[in-house]
Amino acid sequence: MGTTHFLDQALKLEAAPADADHYTGTASPAYWNMVGPFGGTTAATVLQAVMQHPKRLGEPIALTVNYGAALGPGAFTVTARAVRTNRSTQHWRIDLSQADAEGAPQLVTTATAVTAARRDTWGVSDMPMPSAPLPHEVESSKLDFRVEWPRRYDMRAILGDVPTQWNETESQADPAEASLTRLWVRDEPPRPIDFPALAAMADVFYPRAWLRRPKLVPAGTVSFTVYFHADSALLDATGDGHLLAQARAQAFRNGFFDQSAQLWNQAGALLATSHQIVYYKE
Amino acid sequence: MGTTHFLDQALKLEAAPADADHYTGTASPAYWNMVGPFGGTTAATVLQAVMQHPKRLGEPIALTVNYGAALGPGAFTVTARAVRTNRSTQHWRIDLSQADAEGAPQLVTTATAVTAARRDTWGVSDMPMPSAPLPHEVESSKLDFRVEWPRRYDMRAILGDVPTQWNETESQADPAEASLTRLWVRDEPPRPIDFPALAAMADVFYPRAWLRRPKLVPAGTVSFTVYFHADSALLDATGDGHLLAQARAQAFRNGFFDQSAQLWNQAGALLATSHQIVYYKE
Repeated sequence: MGTTHFLDQALKLEAAPADADHYTGTASPAYWNMVGPFGGTTAATVLQAVMQHPKRLGEPIALTVNYGAALGPGAFTVTARAVRTNRSTQHWRIDLSQADAEGAPQLVTTATAVTAARRDTWGVSDMPMPSAPLPHEVESSKLDFRVEWPRRYDMRAILGDVPTQWNETESQADPAEASLTRLWVRDEPPRPIDFPALAAMADVFYPRAWLRRPKLVPAGTVSFTVYFHADSALLDATGDGHLLAQARAQAFRNGFFDQSAQLWNQAGALLATSHQIVYYKE
Repeated sequence: MGTTHFLDQALKLEAAPADADHYTGTASPAYWNMVGPFGGTTAATVLQAVMQHPKRLGEPIALTVNYGAALGPGAFTVTARAVRTNRSTQHWRIDLSQADAEGAPQLVTTATAVTAARRDTWGVSDMPMPSAPLPHEVESSKLDFRVEWPRRYDMRAILGDVPTQWNETESQADPAEASLTRLWVRDEPPRPIDFPALAAMADVFYPRAWLRRPKLVPAGTVSFTVYFHADSALLDATGDGHLLAQARAQAFRNGFFDQSAQLWNQAGALLATSHQIVYYKE
């Protein structure tokens, strides 16, 4: 009672008194990864600045986050500017900066977002939810994580869980499934989903390079895009239930692989699709 | 023989004498669409500014272009800034602006790009080129285009050509193919491919909403992302040959649909994958 959810703590942004474009926050230890917070949390933070901006028009359609450097511990600044406002769409530029050891602000993350007033139109989904056992029929991952952020999610892998043997033998599966992970995921503890939380969940997949060979190599997202197919009414209807999420790569080449992901609610509605390009070593 | 290719004319950018970040160009009538140049040309222009920037490190990995407004005829300004340079990756922010009727600069397009020094690593492609007849076995599209830009491409549709009957009957094809277009494409006349040309070709697909129903509705790209899997050596090897390109949507909902695309050279190498979210009416 009165306990703020980890994610709400992580996304807490204070608006600067005289400038609605500037926000300050604190990097969340609860979502810590190897050298900074989980990239999904950073994406959610950037989007949160747009969500609470007094000039925002409509709801998120697209978000692209470019990870220039690891966010370190402590305070950071987010600047969110509506750089172009049309009748029904609005274009945002968002920067996340942090002071270096000498106190000079360093740009850590650049992002863009588009928000829009959505209208009822004809529509259809061509990406039906794959058949899957129900969440309670799948075991929660109990991996001995060495980092903190996976503990903030309940993840139940159906296909493509984190390998336990790093034998460097390329998967012989069908190319469409050789790098595929499919899982149920929700915030832990449960939390009603909103756009920032959905953006973060689109990034919960461990690096596809770990699965495809499998080999445990350094890897990090360079650029991450989320397209929101859900509006807030659909997110409200989704509530705090598990999402079925899946991700696969199309190509691994010369230090970079791509990843495409889809997220459905338990009723089978496609909430978001997402893409990223990821650096990997060796 | 001294004749500059249409695309090189369109991409011609003059650097400002005292500021390497600023470039001026002219909107190309040769690539005109309904109310401005073809969006692919705009994406190529934005990337061209990065390519010719004296501070550029490495080759393009990712490009995201957000279309805020239609570019009109005449002069425009591109500002390309390396906002974060790491040991092997570099993050760019690019803006395209144009003076309005009163001469005041208006932001038309915002973009981000990542360039990187690529290294030899393990790699694999999980998106093999689909089997297709050879380019010379497929007829060039001879549609009576009402706009100029499609004349700048040789496009040979194998699947999902522009509908000729707008009967508003939803496709009954398998969801994976209901919005699928597959075609051979190259610049017309032929031109050795480079990164800007590849970015433009990732956007040659007419709106998926036209195919899926089919109904001829207003539609326009809102945000467009290209991931480059090719390096310049592979582009050099590709030369001016046709690319096999395909695109499909995953969801159409409340005025926006997504599109994912892949482009291979004729030898079967995946050169780029691309994603976009597109506004549509009704």
